[in-house]
Amino acid sequence: MEKNLRDIHSPEDIKGMSLEQLYLLSDELRAALTRKLAAHGGHVGPNLGVVEATVALHYVFDAPKDKIVYDVSHQSYVHKMLTGRIEAFLDPAHYDDVTGYTCPRESDYDLFEVGHTSTSIALATGLVKSRDLVGGKENVVAFIGDASLGGGMALEALNYAPELHSNIIVILNDNQMSIAENHGELYNHLKTLRDSNGTAENNIFRALGYEYIYVEEGNDLRALIKAYREAKGQNRAVLVHINTMKGMGLPCAEAHKEQFHYNGPFDPKTGANINSAQVESYQEIFALQLLDKMRADKRVVGLTAGTPGAIGWDPAMREAAGDQFVDVGIAEQDCVTMAAGMARGGARPVMGVVSTFLQRAYDQLSHDVAINDLPVTFVVFYGSMFGMNDMTHLGFFDIAMVSNIPNITFLAPASAEEYKAMLDQAVDSANGPVVIRIPGGAVRHQSAPVNTDFTKYETVEQGAEVAIIAEGTFLETALKAAEILRSKGVTPTVINPRILSQVDAGSLDTLKDYRHVITIEDGIVDGGFGQKVAAYLGTSPVKVTCLGLEKEFLDRFNAAELLKANGLTPEQIASIA
Amino acid sequence: MEKNLRDIHSPEDIKGMSLEQLYLLSDELRAALTRKLAAHGGHVGPNLGVVEATVALHYVFDAPKDKIVYDVSHQSYVHKMLTGRIEAFLDPAHYDDVTGYTCPRESDYDLFEVGHTSTSIALATGLVKSRDLVGGKENVVAFIGDASLGGGMALEALNYAPELHSNIIVILNDNQMSIAENHGELYNHLKTLRDSNGTAENNIFRALGYEYIYVEEGNDLRALIKAYREAKGQNRAVLVHINTMKGMGLPCAEAHKEQFHYNGPFDPKTGANINSAQVESYQEIFALQLLDKMRADKRVVGLTAGTPGAIGWDPAMREAAGDQFVDVGIAEQDCVTMAAGMARGGARPVMGVVSTFLQRAYDQLSHDVAINDLPVTFVVFYGSMFGMNDMTHLGFFDIAMVSNIPNITFLAPASAEEYKAMLDQAVDSANGPVVIRIPGGAVRHQSAPVNTDFTKYETVEQGAEVAIIAEGTFLETALKAAEILRSKGVTPTVINPRILSQVDAGSLDTLKDYRHVITIEDGIVDGGFGQKVAAYLGTSPVKVTCLGLEKEFLDRFNAAELLKANGLTPEQIASIA
Repeated sequence: MEKNLRDIHSPEDIKGMSLEQLYLLSDELRAALTRKLAAHGGHVGPNLGVVEATVALHYVFDAPKDKIVYDVSHQSYVHKMLTGRIEAFLDPAHYDDVTGYTCPRESDYDLFEVGHTSTSIALATGLVKSRDLVGGKENVVAFIGDASLGGGMALEALNYAPELHSNIIVILNDNQMSIAENHGELYNHLKTLRDSNGTAENNIFRALGYEYIYVEEGNDLRALIKAYREAKGQNRAVLVHINTMKGMGLPCAEAHKEQFHYNGPFDPKTGANINSAQVESYQEIFALQLLDKMRADKRVVGLTAGTPGAIGWDPAMREAAGDQFVDVGIAEQDCVTMAAGMARGGARPVMGVVSTFLQRAYDQLSHDVAINDLPVTFVVFYGSMFGMNDMTHLGFFDIAMVSNIPNITFLAPASAEEYKAMLDQAVDSANGPVVIRIPGGAVRHQSAPVNTDFTKYETVEQGAEVAIIAEGTFLETALKAAEILRSKGVTPTVINPRILSQVDAGSLDTLKDYRHVITIEDGIVDGGFGQKVAAYLGTSPVKVTCLGLEKEFLDRFNAAELLKANGLTPEQIASIA
Repeated sequence: MEKNLRDIHSPEDIKGMSLEQLYLLSDELRAALTRKLAAHGGHVGPNLGVVEATVALHYVFDAPKDKIVYDVSHQSYVHKMLTGRIEAFLDPAHYDDVTGYTCPRESDYDLFEVGHTSTSIALATGLVKSRDLVGGKENVVAFIGDASLGGGMALEALNYAPELHSNIIVILNDNQMSIAENHGELYNHLKTLRDSNGTAENNIFRALGYEYIYVEEGNDLRALIKAYREAKGQNRAVLVHINTMKGMGLPCAEAHKEQFHYNGPFDPKTGANINSAQVESYQEIFALQLLDKMRADKRVVGLTAGTPGAIGWDPAMREAAGDQFVDVGIAEQDCVTMAAGMARGGARPVMGVVSTFLQRAYDQLSHDVAINDLPVTFVVFYGSMFGMNDMTHLGFFDIAMVSNIPNITFLAPASAEEYKAMLDQAVDSANGPVVIRIPGGAVRHQSAPVNTDFTKYETVEQGAEVAIIAEGTFLETALKAAEILRSKGVTPTVINPRILSQVDAGSLDTLKDYRHVITIEDGIVDGGFGQKVAAYLGTSPVKVTCLGLEKEFLDRFNAAELLKANGLTPEQIASIA
């Protein structure tokens, strides 16, 4: 079987195939994909659901001349298998040769590094515009899932694209799921369209000027090829709505769609996770604490923009929270601004959010929440070099992005106890917005009581001469560096700053006659809290060194190497003190 | 006449009026509003167009118990007149007692500080949710213009709101205009609905689960009152589509809708501007230069997200640029990401953007443009304390926001010549994204040739002991401070940094044995370029002082006072040197 797949070096190799051969090819691709996913983990359901849709795409269109843009691109595995990267799906030794998203560094068939949702139609309109300026004739295709379509930019672009009066094909891969369930009336509308075989009235796509083609059998090659051929080469905007099944062909993924959206290694027969050791997580601590607070106060509301699982809210927890848990779908802007409205109405909203996705709502944080100084609490997960490590999902940037917005109190706990005290204070009594950044790495506990005046730095160890001010993740590192230094006869002061959006002048004033102040943060140094400290101490003789990460986009880095490259090991810190 | 208006202290005062009296009231409101607008300037067309829609709103609904959320809120003048603030529209001495937007600091009838588009439905859903959690019964109304509806968050919220299955009323004020003309197929759809008196097929609002009510006579009180009464008190999502005329009742505003969207003082008879002295502007310089570049190269494209006038592209210029100028409507996200797509396709996109609106596309800047390292050029206007001064439109934050994103070259020219050289270089030969921040204040010229190695700081005056590194707007201030210092026997070095996204180590290394380095920037100090300098020089004995603005949201400040409060006058700078 794999011999056939190994012969596929480019889409050219499938263009001469008969329909029967294409069906066989799809089965082989699905089988190979399942083997890799089970052994390696990855986006299981999204890819198994689009095997046929992808084979048909490369059969009908002529990439890379025709341009295919994947939304999120977490469903591009089969595309990679058909475009010269099959080895990375057949040979375990090469599994990590490819990223989990489209990647121009890998292949000319991949046009963009993508990982966030809702970008494909806008990117495609740009390709259309540049094509038309120079008189090109290629097709431009945006391949977007139903969940991604609910994101604001996707809707903006859906609205704008037909105005170009030029060839653009939107393939709407409707698998009836977001990561979790979909939210918003659009999804009832899509159901109405599916239930009527595409004939229902009030067709939103026709309203927006699209030629609309519905494919009920979105996992059937024959139907897909027919629809794609109809869409190809038209000089207008065409939307092909394909009804697919997420996780198609793998029973556990078909049955447990949320779990198998993305999963680690698993037994393909039973669906059981292979590495299922239970470790304590901040997600669980957050969800349980918030559920308690919800039960005590009806006005406490938990919010997510489409990623409930990533913030600890599995289906059972959501069920328990009832109408006090809100998932708006992948619509971070709506989520943040809805939270602002809730706070004005007297509720106590708490949004859990993945660091990299918070940047999708910068204006909403600033204009809606911060200017209005409303008590909305944000709990930020994966804001750490020990979080996600795909280039499109880095958690290095939230300190610089958020802590420089006025009125926002930006807190970085260094332990579970500190975090819990911060959440209690924010939800129970804050008068303005509070952002709490969950530290990276294993959950840390502290036995000392938590000082809840979070406007003040906390001196954890009192020393002299040298001070290390280390936020969140790096407090433990600082304590280790202090130990090394003590063995060399220097007893440094170790400070946990907790608040990163302003300096604690009182604390810093005590350091002005020190020899050296070292700041450490789990994020880029530029725009971070360390530079605030350096500026505050700029007119004092004390030396200041700001440690953290360089301002750069990295991809699938090794954390230990990154620590070393940035001088962040205890030994390195001690050596410069 | 004004006696009647002066008797209106709250909406209660109009509830007992007959329809005839309400018609008369509307005429009087429009006349008073026109007088103020002509003398004072403001959002002319938007407010004149909604006189009746606002009177009917306060007649039918019971604010502040019923909650009304204005989108952008630039159309809330009549609302202010009816809610206790009439004096500010009748007495010239009190014209500036009110802001140009809704403002909770002014009145309980105003729920949010708002100035950006597309927020109202999301804010309203938040009010709905908090109401429903505590069992309230009030109506929640979002009042949104057709142009604002095209923004991503408005569409996200339009999609989500009906899922609440609860009272929410969206009033769609369709005046058939954005600031300039609308873009996107939604606007053809709205036309189809208007042309069919609301009966056209493929109704997008019905598709999204709304009860849809169309009001052809959107400037007629009787029709509006009937429609609002129908919408009021329903336990579901209702959308009232009202067909209004922007600038209604003022011939010049009816005829010149783009000009009179927002205008300074004018002669209400002729429409002629009163203060029409022509001064040189960076907008004009930008537009003419870019048009030249478009003519020389078909791949050069100008882009805007709904604000062509604010970046120098009046209708004649747009006409001249033809298909090389793109306005996507008020959809900054789509605009930025479309530019990324264009750049990948080989075009050379240049987006002109107002500083405060660039923050609406942070994720697009980072994820789509910067990660993909694409040659998109952004020219940022009003990024200055001398730009806009409404709390919702401040230009203080773009340095901190943008310059800390990897791969972006963030440039701050200090003269027209420097700016032009930067645009030439960015469009002609950049390999990655470039952001050029237009300085504030009058256009400055330099006679010295421009050093086009913009990775390097430029020493404008060589001195010793003290160095002043002043970006853009403040270079002139630094030169004045230097003059003062020379008169006191100190000859400082004055440096124009030009690049704010990285330090010029070579230049800073020459300052390590100086006594004092002072940085000045036209934006908040936090997260800015000065703190990068302070951090770089942190291990050297030289003192560093970072000057700029405090991190705070200000409203309608006096620029001279703000300079003083932040130590930014030449005298103050010289005094600390």
